[in-house]
Amino acid sequence: MKVINLDYISANPLLPEVQDAMIGAIKKDYGNPSSTHSFGDEARDAIEKARENVAQLINSPSPEDIIFTSSGTESINHAIKGVAFAHGKKGKHIVTSNIEHNSVLKSLRRLTKSGYTITSVEVDKHGLVDPANVEKAITDQTILISIMHGNNEIGTIQPVKEIARIAQEKNILFHSDCVASVGVIPIDVQDLGIDLISFAANQFNGPSGVGGLYIRKGVALWPLIDGGGQEFGRRAGTENLIGIIGMGVAAEIAFNEMQSRLSYTKKLKNRLITGLKENIEDVVINGHPELSLPNLISLSVKYIEGESIVLMLDEEKVVVSTRSACASGSLRASHVLLSIDLDYADAQGTLIITFGKQTTEDEIDRFIDVLKKVVTTLREMSPLYKKGKI
Amino acid sequence: MKVINLDYISANPLLPEVQDAMIGAIKKDYGNPSSTHSFGDEARDAIEKARENVAQLINSPSPEDIIFTSSGTESINHAIKGVAFAHGKKGKHIVTSNIEHNSVLKSLRRLTKSGYTITSVEVDKHGLVDPANVEKAITDQTILISIMHGNNEIGTIQPVKEIARIAQEKNILFHSDCVASVGVIPIDVQDLGIDLISFAANQFNGPSGVGGLYIRKGVALWPLIDGGGQEFGRRAGTENLIGIIGMGVAAEIAFNEMQSRLSYTKKLKNRLITGLKENIEDVVINGHPELSLPNLISLSVKYIEGESIVLMLDEEKVVVSTRSACASGSLRASHVLLSIDLDYADAQGTLIITFGKQTTEDEIDRFIDVLKKVVTTLREMSPLYKKGKI
Repeated sequence: MKVINLDYISANPLLPEVQDAMIGAIKKDYGNPSSTHSFGDEARDAIEKARENVAQLINSPSPEDIIFTSSGTESINHAIKGVAFAHGKKGKHIVTSNIEHNSVLKSLRRLTKSGYTITSVEVDKHGLVDPANVEKAITDQTILISIMHGNNEIGTIQPVKEIARIAQEKNILFHSDCVASVGVIPIDVQDLGIDLISFAANQFNGPSGVGGLYIRKGVALWPLIDGGGQEFGRRAGTENLIGIIGMGVAAEIAFNEMQSRLSYTKKLKNRLITGLKENIEDVVINGHPELSLPNLISLSVKYIEGESIVLMLDEEKVVVSTRSACASGSLRASHVLLSIDLDYADAQGTLIITFGKQTTEDEIDRFIDVLKKVVTTLREMSPLYKKGKI
Repeated sequence: MKVINLDYISANPLLPEVQDAMIGAIKKDYGNPSSTHSFGDEARDAIEKARENVAQLINSPSPEDIIFTSSGTESINHAIKGVAFAHGKKGKHIVTSNIEHNSVLKSLRRLTKSGYTITSVEVDKHGLVDPANVEKAITDQTILISIMHGNNEIGTIQPVKEIARIAQEKNILFHSDCVASVGVIPIDVQDLGIDLISFAANQFNGPSGVGGLYIRKGVALWPLIDGGGQEFGRRAGTENLIGIIGMGVAAEIAFNEMQSRLSYTKKLKNRLITGLKENIEDVVINGHPELSLPNLISLSVKYIEGESIVLMLDEEKVVVSTRSACASGSLRASHVLLSIDLDYADAQGTLIITFGKQTTEDEIDRFIDVLKKVVTTLREMSPLYKKGKI
C-alpha cells in the first residue's frame, strides 16, 4: 500500500526535476565555487543561476539581495541576531508575536541573555496579529519587528504589508519568517515592503538543509557565520552547491506553477474540510477561515491525543504531523495552539495536515476514511471522550 | 585533455561510493528526520549511521559527541562564539595563533566587538606554534584556546596534544580547527585531549556544505543556530540529509583507507618535491619539513605572482590554488605566509598544491612539466625576475 504523505510541512517531496538537477550536479562533481579557476566558475554560474530563480520567486529587486543558508532556521537566526547585534547601540528592544516558530522564539530568548528585551503581541482566536498592537508595542528602543507570514501550525496569514508600513514609518527594521509561505503563495517583497524574509527550499519541493534570506539593499546586519567572502561577504563557508542547485530548480518551477498550484491546493483544502466535517464529529478547524495557507489544515480532534492519532495513522501508512514538526519529540502542547485559546485538551489533539501538487483527491478521500476509523477506535478507548459525552 | 586537479583543499572530488549514496538518498527522498512518524525514522537512522562513521574516524567516545553543521566554517563559528558566550562571565580572553583560517580570525574579531580580547601567538619560520608561548599568553581571564591542527596554506601540523595538556592543566577549553587534517591524517580526539574540533566533509572526498563539530561530553557552549531540537538540541534546523549521508560514507572510507592513503600521498608528495627542486629554480617549499600534511605542498615561486601562475596553469587544464581558497578573490597577501617571514614578493607567488587518492603519479609529473613551462614564460616577462637576477 502506497504511503499517503500529508506532512508536506515537515518536508515536501522532491520534484523529479529537482532530483535530476541534483543528481546531475553530483555526477558532474563541480569544484569549489569560491576558487578563481575554471572548475570554480562553472559552480559559481550554477549558484548564480539558482539565486536568480529564487529572486524571481519573491520578486527581489536583484539576485544579490538573496543569500543562501543551510535552512529556514539559520536564515531566521541570521536575520534576528544579525540585526540585533548590528543595531544594539541604537536600542535593544524587539517586537514579535505569540505564535512564532521556535527558531524565532529561541533566537529572541537567546538575545535576552545579552540584554535585549522582547515584547510579544497577542493574537486573536484565529491566530491573527492586529497591526495596531504591533504599533503600540513599539518604543523608542525598538530596533526590530519579527512577525511571521504564514503560520506553520494553523496556517493563518498575518497582515505583514500593514506591519511593514508601520515599521517603515517608525524607521524600524522588519523581518518576517516566510518559511511556510514562500513558494506556496505569491510573495512580492517589493510590494510587501519587508526588510528581511527567511525561507526554505523544502517548503516548495526542494531539498532539506538549504534556505534563503532576503536582505533589502542597505539593511545592515552582522553575519551569523564569519570567515571567507562567500555570499557577498554576508555568510561564510563553502557552499552546499548540490542543495543550492536543487533549490534553484524548485524555485523556478514554483514561480512558473504558482497560479495552478494555488487553485489546486485550494480545491484539495475545500474537499478535505468538507469531508472532515461530514464524516467526523467534534473536530475543530483552527486558524483563520480565509486568511490562511492553502496547503495546510490544523485540525483539533476532541478528546484524543494528536500523538496517538499520528501513530495509528502511521500504521495505516498515512503520514501527518501533530503540532510543529520542529517541536515534535517534546510532548508539550503547542504555544501556537495555546495562544489561540483552544483549551489544553484540544491543543493536545491537533493534527497538521499539509499537502501539495503531488497530492491527489483520492489520497484526501482515503485519508478521511482512515482518520474516521482511527478516531472511532481511539475514542472508544478514551475516558476523556466518555466524560465529555456524558 | 583531462583536467589535472591539484586543488583538493578547495574541495576533494567526490568518491564514487559517496556519489552513489547521495544519489540513492535523492531518489529515495526520505521525509523530515525530525518528525515522529516512520518516514522520519528511516532518515533518522541514516543520520545516526553517518554520525557513527564520523565518530569512528576521529575516535570520538560516542557518536552523540558529534553534531553535523553546514561547513567547517560553521563548526568553527559555533565552537568559538558558543564557548565565548557561554563562558563570558568567567572571563573574556581568548588565545589563538597568527596562522589560523579566516573563519577563526573573523569569529574572534567579531567577538572583540562584544568586549572579548584576543592574544595571538607567533609562529616560527616553519609556521609552528611553540606551546610555551601559548602557556605564556594565558591569563586568569582566558576561557578558550583556539589553535588549528594542519594549516591549510602551508601544511604545518601544530603540537595540539601538548597545547591540549596545557589547556587541561589551566582548566581552559581548547578548540582546534581540524578542517585540513580530519580524514587526511589519523586523529584521535581521546588521545589528543582536545575539547572541540571542527572539520568538513569536502576535505575527505565528501560533499561541500556539510561539516562536523566534535564537542567533548560536558563542554558547555551556546548554539550558533537556535530553534528546534535537532542535533541533541545543539544545532537547530532541518538537517541536510543528503549531504550528511555523503559525509558518513566518506568518513567510513577515509577511516578504512587511512593507512594506505597516508603512504600514497606521502609518496606523491616526495615525488612532487623532488621533481620541483630538480626542474625549477628559485622555488621555496614552505612549512615544516616533517610536521606537515602529506597531501599539501606550499610552493613559493620567486619573482612571479601566484594568480598569474594559476591562470596560466588553468589554460593548460591544471588546477591549483594560490593562498587560501576561502580568501581568493581578494588580492591581499596571505597572513599565514607573512607570519612565517617570507618576504612579500615570495608570499605573492605562492601556490597551494593539494592532492589525494585519485591523483596519479602521471599527473604529478605532467604538473611539473607544465609548471616549468609556465614559470619560464612568466619569468621572461617579469621585471622582478630580471632585477632579482642582476
